[in-house]
Amino acid sequence: MKHKFLGYRCSLCGEEYLHEEVIYVCPQDGGNLDIIYDFDALKKTLSIESLLTSREESIWRYLALLPLGTGLEEPTAITHVGWTPIYSPARLKQVFDVSDFWVKDESCNPTASFKDRASAVVVSRAKEIKADVVVTASTGNAGAALAGMAAAADHKAVIFAPRSAPPAKIAQLLIYNATVLLVDGSYDQAFDLSIDAAEEFGWYCRNTGYNPFTLEGKKTAALEIWEQLLYPGSLKDPLHIFVSVGDGNIISGLHKGFKDLLELGWLEMMPRIYGVQSEGSAAVANTFLAGDENIIPVSANTRADSISVDLPRDGVRAVRAARQTGGKYITVSDEEIMTAIPELGQVGVFAEPAGAAAYAGYKKALIQSIVNHDAPALVLNTGSGLKDVNAAMASVKPAPVIEPTLRAIEKALNKI
Amino acid sequence: MKHKFLGYRCSLCGEEYLHEEVIYVCPQDGGNLDIIYDFDALKKTLSIESLLTSREESIWRYLALLPLGTGLEEPTAITHVGWTPIYSPARLKQVFDVSDFWVKDESCNPTASFKDRASAVVVSRAKEIKADVVVTASTGNAGAALAGMAAAADHKAVIFAPRSAPPAKIAQLLIYNATVLLVDGSYDQAFDLSIDAAEEFGWYCRNTGYNPFTLEGKKTAALEIWEQLLYPGSLKDPLHIFVSVGDGNIISGLHKGFKDLLELGWLEMMPRIYGVQSEGSAAVANTFLAGDENIIPVSANTRADSISVDLPRDGVRAVRAARQTGGKYITVSDEEIMTAIPELGQVGVFAEPAGAAAYAGYKKALIQSIVNHDAPALVLNTGSGLKDVNAAMASVKPAPVIEPTLRAIEKALNKI
Repeated sequence: MKHKFLGYRCSLCGEEYLHEEVIYVCPQDGGNLDIIYDFDALKKTLSIESLLTSREESIWRYLALLPLGTGLEEPTAITHVGWTPIYSPARLKQVFDVSDFWVKDESCNPTASFKDRASAVVVSRAKEIKADVVVTASTGNAGAALAGMAAAADHKAVIFAPRSAPPAKIAQLLIYNATVLLVDGSYDQAFDLSIDAAEEFGWYCRNTGYNPFTLEGKKTAALEIWEQLLYPGSLKDPLHIFVSVGDGNIISGLHKGFKDLLELGWLEMMPRIYGVQSEGSAAVANTFLAGDENIIPVSANTRADSISVDLPRDGVRAVRAARQTGGKYITVSDEEIMTAIPELGQVGVFAEPAGAAAYAGYKKALIQSIVNHDAPALVLNTGSGLKDVNAAMASVKPAPVIEPTLRAIEKALNKI
Repeated sequence: MKHKFLGYRCSLCGEEYLHEEVIYVCPQDGGNLDIIYDFDALKKTLSIESLLTSREESIWRYLALLPLGTGLEEPTAITHVGWTPIYSPARLKQVFDVSDFWVKDESCNPTASFKDRASAVVVSRAKEIKADVVVTASTGNAGAALAGMAAAADHKAVIFAPRSAPPAKIAQLLIYNATVLLVDGSYDQAFDLSIDAAEEFGWYCRNTGYNPFTLEGKKTAALEIWEQLLYPGSLKDPLHIFVSVGDGNIISGLHKGFKDLLELGWLEMMPRIYGVQSEGSAAVANTFLAGDENIIPVSANTRADSISVDLPRDGVRAVRAARQTGGKYITVSDEEIMTAIPELGQVGVFAEPAGAAAYAGYKKALIQSIVNHDAPALVLNTGSGLKDVNAAMASVKPAPVIEPTLRAIEKALNKI
């Protein structure tokens, strides 16, 4: 019997490869590879009903739609990743005068970011192909996610991080027992170094926008949004999804998930996907606006470290995610990002700057009438605010210090 | 029809009160109040089967076993709290030479600690009794949890924190839009001040070991352990549960949950509950060892800020939780706690010092033959390591900085 996972298709030249022919990118032009499924076979074996009644409360409920299980061993369901909650915050709906608004909160993933989805699938793949060491270059979340997922699966991870990464993220790498090497150079240098090291030492490279399995892990968020919100078609208009964009792999993953659902005939309306970038790191937004697929590197400078990227490694697919779904790209200033942190906080969601950026983008889209107030919208918070406490503290007024007396309380409360 | 929630019983003198008669502690001796249920009625209306098939993946699956719903409004199911994962880390089972070992990880709660369970129930209660403002004194997690749950429920919170609380925890309070007052004094002074302020300004006080609803929120962890691990009785021996103890309310909450299950006839064997305290903050352990119920304050000094408590406000019930279940108290040094952080990390669980303390206690109990290697054991991680990144960094060796060359990698790897 053929496996559901048929092979790869280059996102640039369209060339197809069998799944044992290539590992990372297209040998001809370096393009990112899309994984091809045998949807005819899947349609015959899968039923929505069995999925909807699954008691697996993690991304592993979608195992049948992941490119795993080609090895001799059963795929390893590593730890409790995904199946994150969707909130519908009343206060923000009132403020924005909208009736359908949701936040999907990825901060409750095991390492507190969206990236666990990708790392869990990559580590599972590594186990299948008997790759003993997984390596990645990361500014933080992807590395922490790889370190955490590898630890949970008792697998070996090596992480190259730029030495400027935030302390909380480096702490996670070390605690999860990864081999951490702080590269005295840029993220791009760390990226190239990790690829060279993978080749030199026979490691399996998880790099985003390079390893085709990260996208498949990330698409599970789209599958969840579909299952938690869209099925069986209660919305009258397409859902408008706002997601922050750095290297472009998350937005591309969401797009892939919805495309897979369309192929299966399970999705009624393709959501419109809106990419939000920081003005200081807007390479993908620039390309979107230029109307082509030519990604020109920038010299990134933004407070939102997780989406601070000079050269987006998955830029082309990221542009298409918005372009092909009727979405757009929106850029926001660091000031707008910082304002967004306490605004999301006041409804109980504590986001890191990159996560808050998506919310800032939605707000701007409403104000500038890019989206209507009656358009159903979802904002994805991609990471916990605990990842960058300094940014959080800078986004709010400090708390007053008082003497332990009732009089001091009264005085302080009058001032607030 | 009578409500399932009949009233309160003082944990010290045994005096009973109707649920509208008192709010916080016993008017006669200040003892903590236990909530009394009409178990005969509950037994008639509740079925295990309907619980086990519930699709509510949060503490609200146990709403029927919570003292809510006495108001005119339906109880408010605030946000996605609890129903946290239980892991069975292969590597640690091998290291310890044990066959049944689990970690229940509370770090994936919305504000990244166990305390969300209590705060969600208290805020829900506040809504029922139309208390517009909820106040608490907290060294960190309880305050963050109250602020987060209040934000999610669009409710007003006031938090008194000692000005020495860790920055990550203060950041959470502010981001969640609570009114934060940093008290220039000890936690005990902040505690007393919050009670005075509640009375003076008509606020509802959430303080741990004072408000009887926190215990009910915390008992949900026991209900989950039962449902996820113990039902329908697959273990041959009683489960040994290790939990860190500060003010004593978490361990008392676990005990209450299991007692409720016994009353319902749903629990086969009462687990043995082991309290773990820091040597520098061991008031409850001291009382346990003394064999009485006389809690003598200490001058607490430990790196594990969440369990650093001079006067445990729920000490008596905390002593009983171990004593009445055949458990014990174990004290661990700060060094043992710090060593525990990366040991838990290497299986994918990133704990704050207080959370790691429970693991350190289990390890010590094994080494000292306080528990056997064939005893099934569960360690509760009560909070995320991201809450105290400085402690995490102090528990591991710093990562080496390298030039971006393969040669530098080889050199660094040889040293590791």
